[in-house]
Amino acid sequence: MPRLRHPAVNEKPGYQLMKVALGEAEADLAIVNGNILNVYTGEVLTADTVLVKGNRIAYVGKNAQQSISTNTEVIDAEGKTLIPGLIDGHTHANFVYSVSEMMKYALKGGTTAVITEAIDFAVNLGYQGVIEFLRSLKNQPMKVFIAVPPMVTISPVVREHSLTRHELRKLLKRKEVIGLGECYWGPTIEGDPQLLDYITEARMSGKKIDGHTTGARDNKLQGYASLGISSCHEPTTVDEVLERLRLGMFVLIREGETRRELEAVAGIKDENIDFRQLGVSTDGVGPWQITTDGYMEFVVQKAIDLGFNPVQAIQMATINIAQHFGLDDFIGGIAPGKCADIVIIPNLTTIQAECVISNGRVVARDGQLLVQPRKHNYPRSTQNAVRLPKSLTADDFAVRIDSQRRKVKVRVIDQVSDLITREAIIELPVSNGLVLPDADSDILKVAAIERTYLPGKTFVGFIRGLRFKRGAMATTAVWDTSDIIVAGTNEADMAQAVNRIGELNGGIVICAGGKILAEMALPISGMLSLQPVEAISQQLHHIQQVAETLGCPWPDIRLTLCVLTTGAIPFLRMCEEGLFDLRQNSLVPLIVD
Amino acid sequence: MPRLRHPAVNEKPGYQLMKVALGEAEADLAIVNGNILNVYTGEVLTADTVLVKGNRIAYVGKNAQQSISTNTEVIDAEGKTLIPGLIDGHTHANFVYSVSEMMKYALKGGTTAVITEAIDFAVNLGYQGVIEFLRSLKNQPMKVFIAVPPMVTISPVVREHSLTRHELRKLLKRKEVIGLGECYWGPTIEGDPQLLDYITEARMSGKKIDGHTTGARDNKLQGYASLGISSCHEPTTVDEVLERLRLGMFVLIREGETRRELEAVAGIKDENIDFRQLGVSTDGVGPWQITTDGYMEFVVQKAIDLGFNPVQAIQMATINIAQHFGLDDFIGGIAPGKCADIVIIPNLTTIQAECVISNGRVVARDGQLLVQPRKHNYPRSTQNAVRLPKSLTADDFAVRIDSQRRKVKVRVIDQVSDLITREAIIELPVSNGLVLPDADSDILKVAAIERTYLPGKTFVGFIRGLRFKRGAMATTAVWDTSDIIVAGTNEADMAQAVNRIGELNGGIVICAGGKILAEMALPISGMLSLQPVEAISQQLHHIQQVAETLGCPWPDIRLTLCVLTTGAIPFLRMCEEGLFDLRQNSLVPLIVD
Repeated sequence: MPRLRHPAVNEKPGYQLMKVALGEAEADLAIVNGNILNVYTGEVLTADTVLVKGNRIAYVGKNAQQSISTNTEVIDAEGKTLIPGLIDGHTHANFVYSVSEMMKYALKGGTTAVITEAIDFAVNLGYQGVIEFLRSLKNQPMKVFIAVPPMVTISPVVREHSLTRHELRKLLKRKEVIGLGECYWGPTIEGDPQLLDYITEARMSGKKIDGHTTGARDNKLQGYASLGISSCHEPTTVDEVLERLRLGMFVLIREGETRRELEAVAGIKDENIDFRQLGVSTDGVGPWQITTDGYMEFVVQKAIDLGFNPVQAIQMATINIAQHFGLDDFIGGIAPGKCADIVIIPNLTTIQAECVISNGRVVARDGQLLVQPRKHNYPRSTQNAVRLPKSLTADDFAVRIDSQRRKVKVRVIDQVSDLITREAIIELPVSNGLVLPDADSDILKVAAIERTYLPGKTFVGFIRGLRFKRGAMATTAVWDTSDIIVAGTNEADMAQAVNRIGELNGGIVICAGGKILAEMALPISGMLSLQPVEAISQQLHHIQQVAETLGCPWPDIRLTLCVLTTGAIPFLRMCEEGLFDLRQNSLVPLIVD
Repeated sequence: MPRLRHPAVNEKPGYQLMKVALGEAEADLAIVNGNILNVYTGEVLTADTVLVKGNRIAYVGKNAQQSISTNTEVIDAEGKTLIPGLIDGHTHANFVYSVSEMMKYALKGGTTAVITEAIDFAVNLGYQGVIEFLRSLKNQPMKVFIAVPPMVTISPVVREHSLTRHELRKLLKRKEVIGLGECYWGPTIEGDPQLLDYITEARMSGKKIDGHTTGARDNKLQGYASLGISSCHEPTTVDEVLERLRLGMFVLIREGETRRELEAVAGIKDENIDFRQLGVSTDGVGPWQITTDGYMEFVVQKAIDLGFNPVQAIQMATINIAQHFGLDDFIGGIAPGKCADIVIIPNLTTIQAECVISNGRVVARDGQLLVQPRKHNYPRSTQNAVRLPKSLTADDFAVRIDSQRRKVKVRVIDQVSDLITREAIIELPVSNGLVLPDADSDILKVAAIERTYLPGKTFVGFIRGLRFKRGAMATTAVWDTSDIIVAGTNEADMAQAVNRIGELNGGIVICAGGKILAEMALPISGMLSLQPVEAISQQLHHIQQVAETLGCPWPDIRLTLCVLTTGAIPFLRMCEEGLFDLRQNSLVPLIVD
């Protein structure tokens, strides 16, 4: 083969791509005869060849023959369609199951890159948790980009232990970091100084700031957007999508674990508008969902089935996301110089990965994974998740008042759907200064027990709607605070569930009548199991079944307890300091009168 | 007015925008009742108000009243249309006339941002030239972003004085720098190590690399694109536009001084493709053009007149360019948080600026400039442009050969259009070892005289096609090398023209019969006049008229001489070392046999 004029170039691996394109070097991989979706123009170009060298695409077209040698792996894609590797624009990887388990299903379905939040490791492990997360992403067969957590939390002690500006700045400089993670709009437009400092820092870095604008509109939404917050994955109606697109925001339609909104907002496809600022995301995909439905291939297929133009649907999961996050020089399309992340599907309306190429390697064929993601070796420092000073007893869950009254009005968390809560002001009986639950009326006790910074600090309140007839359930896998959440019909089972969590060093436990009925360990930061995701899915299924036998009506009780601590979902939440009203953005008293 | 909860916020000017959007602070400027082109969705939304605070947009919509006070400047745009400030995606600002002069016309026509090359100051002044250029852009009423020059040059001595990698890296870190400037494709795919090092450096910085791919196609074009080069402003046919768009490149249709291609490629509008990667640019707009036609408003109007959908045409000059260069968090659209760069026009098909807002200020109304750009004070170090060691005489232009022959075959620059040259092998008479021109056959002498690094080093060759019947013309304003170019019918006039340039310390001079017939000083680096652009335009017009009386047929002789030194236009060029054949990417001998 001819050589380039300057010998220096032949030594530099970065220029091998160019040599392959010029017909001066051998391709490692050639995908021939395929129909290629060009996401840049929206065309499908027929019978072209893609040449790959190392992890990149060198050439796409009809004059490829000169770079195909006997050393080149050739894939015949005749009659098939090539699309870029799919991208999840917003998720929570590394929550309950590990990223390497996520990658197994992501890759075989054709998802080759995700953009994820990183708060789950940061709440209890701080900056080192984010660094450990980044380490777990190295030398993997797919790409994971992270957003630095802005640490929006209702817990004062977690807030105190937020990332410093210096730490934030260091993280924002890393190539794997796309910017700042979801800044819930409530505290932001209240003018929370710490949050505004984070936002300023992110803006100065030139990177993106992810938004979170559930229910915000007009002036409040625009006040929020005026800070440079440039995306949102929360709209639940066509009008909400439109309003955000018109503000120049990038909108990610969510179809995942906590919510599925594709169907509700699919009407956007009929608007005669530019769709470049529209993407899709899961916002987290549960163990059951990923093992059963799959990952982004499911989301894109659903969009197509709902009537989205297939080209647009695929753009929404590839180039649109890549362009928004400034990653389009590397991912999002099939073109020279881009990473060789390619999915071969039967045709544009059937998003079924027959062959997946990630970073230039064939990683899956016909749903079989050919390359195993690396299991990360988590250091001991990540495994000291539950630091309770002593075993708990039933007494630790007493709610005392300083009064001789027989009844008291209490602010109760009212579980009105599996995720949304309101407040109910309910009169509860008092006996010897102890406020009592009312299991017959479905008023149970619920507690938040700090486990990291103020270990053992406990708030006990009341909740309606869990409908447990007996027993208790506890979990360390909660959003945005460092609490164990436990709820139950009696204090003894609540104490036992928490104590068992202590023995497991993090996890989910159901007890009843002094017996442990179901459990799952989450030894990494109390958030993560290192088990295979299939096993995790089974354990969670078992936990759910047991909860249902105890009377629980909610489809995923783990998630229902998990979000009791978050500032993201309306509106009465709790942490170790007490109840938190998101409408007022402040702690509110348990006892009302 | 109510105050935000956290008093700290009230002290921070960055959050005043949010307060205006929330109705908690006064807007500085309100544009009411306008129809607003939303370039994100492609819609026109009617009767909305834009609120501006400082240099940014705070709010766009119908609930603006609470932030409009008696201190707010109110512009009624009823019946009018608001579009984002126009952007030139690729130009050469600061060449012949200064950026502040460019800004006068840019602003009053509605252009509020340009992205410019910076090579013209770097060739003779190096890194300090680029820094001085950046200084001249500070505190101006419009935005200028620069590309760092990759210093693609045919001159070995300019190449030796290119920016160091360290200097390149420092420049790439600056916010005003969008990446690396146009890397001509020839030397790039030849594997020029210095150029590839620059490209690698730019790629690592995460910024863009501008391309320049005149005539490249298929394997060569893709080899070039595989390096991460992501734009091109050179396509001259619909097919060339399409081929580049399909590679994921951003294509800038050129309509400017050196070429006007909108008409030739307008057919692209009829392709049923995604236009997000399509933009417009001038690639430099001459003094006559900017003072007569205007700037980007002319380009966009022409696109509309050629049948482009007006929304697409405006997107091509606003959001598309902003997104490609990663500037869309700040410019390119009318939305909260973006810079308040807004043009009020009569309607979508009439790009006639009735009011221009740049950085939040009304800078022009009905074609009258209200805010004067700052004239930059150039230091002495930029004004030592011509360092010739001595006055030249006719003898300095002798072409000697070591032979007793009476005739010799010479490689002549053949001017086949105003910009394009080929080579002609022509037999010329020799007398006493001196090769003679042949004015009757239009074979004139042409010389390149280095003026910065090897002052006085001279190459003398021959050119056909200038058709001067008498006299000589010289210029220091040439592309990509540090030469004075001089051509003429006789050596005495050539010497006088160059000597006069020495006295002017840079400029353009025409002499004939020992008299100076026309001249213009370019005292800043030999590239730039500080005169008003109207005066410059007149002087150049006079120079052109004089050249025509001498016999020159080309429409802009200044430009014809100017590009004799560039590697950008095919194909026989020259510098102080001799003739340069771009097809071979190397110097070639003057004497052929």
